[in-house]
Amino acid sequence: MSASPQFQQVGEAFVAHYYQNFDANRAGLAPLYRDNSMLTFEGEPFMGAINVINKLTSLGFQKVAHQIITCDCQPILASQPNGIVVFVSGNLMVDDSPNPMKFSQTFVLMPDPSNPASYYVHNDLFRLNYG
Amino acid sequence: MSASPQFQQVGEAFVAHYYQNFDANRAGLAPLYRDNSMLTFEGEPFMGAINVINKLTSLGFQKVAHQIITCDCQPILASQPNGIVVFVSGNLMVDDSPNPMKFSQTFVLMPDPSNPASYYVHNDLFRLNYG
Repeated sequence: MSASPQFQQVGEAFVAHYYQNFDANRAGLAPLYRDNSMLTFEGEPFMGAINVINKLTSLGFQKVAHQIITCDCQPILASQPNGIVVFVSGNLMVDDSPNPMKFSQTFVLMPDPSNPASYYVHNDLFRLNYG
Repeated sequence: MSASPQFQQVGEAFVAHYYQNFDANRAGLAPLYRDNSMLTFEGEPFMGAINVINKLTSLGFQKVAHQIITCDCQPILASQPNGIVVFVSGNLMVDDSPNPMKFSQTFVLMPDPSNPASYYVHNDLFRLNYG
């Protein structure tokens, strides 16, 4: 796993890009999802970029900021094409609440069929971790 | 996603089996891993069933119990063979500590090439969620 850590670089670059856009302009995340993308948000399932973005943009807060604490990545070598698992934990600050919430989120990134050097979100699973 | 929820059943059955065995006899988890299996445990990477099981059996507690709070599953449809993402959150009770720790864990299950009706753990990522 250590000889070719490109999956870690891809995952970390994705995470930086994803949460920066989430916090600044959620609708701008649309290009990261496709028709076969899935989101499970607090147990509620959505499929397809339109439904995913509708959910993300309908979340009832005005201001949001993610602080990433951990970002673990692994390649999925046993299937073709090879995806990348990205497993994130962090703090979520919403509106003017002084108390961050803990969250965990898992993504599976897949190479874009039209541009295998870039990746899209095939799977997205989000949970708050209540204390 | 709702028409064929077999992935959810597979994921939930796996989770019940996995943590029951983890808590009773960690060495007994070995058949769930293969040579290409990966574990990232609190950020530390391991590859191959032997290294994974060595890590799990060397964890420094005598008694452990997992309480599962959430188990979200999604199929990975964009690669062949189709894996299943299993995203778990719960409480971890270690030895005689009265205070459970929060944890999150992500698995990617892959069909066993020699028996596609059964699955093994291709990816395993574990994190404690400090409060």
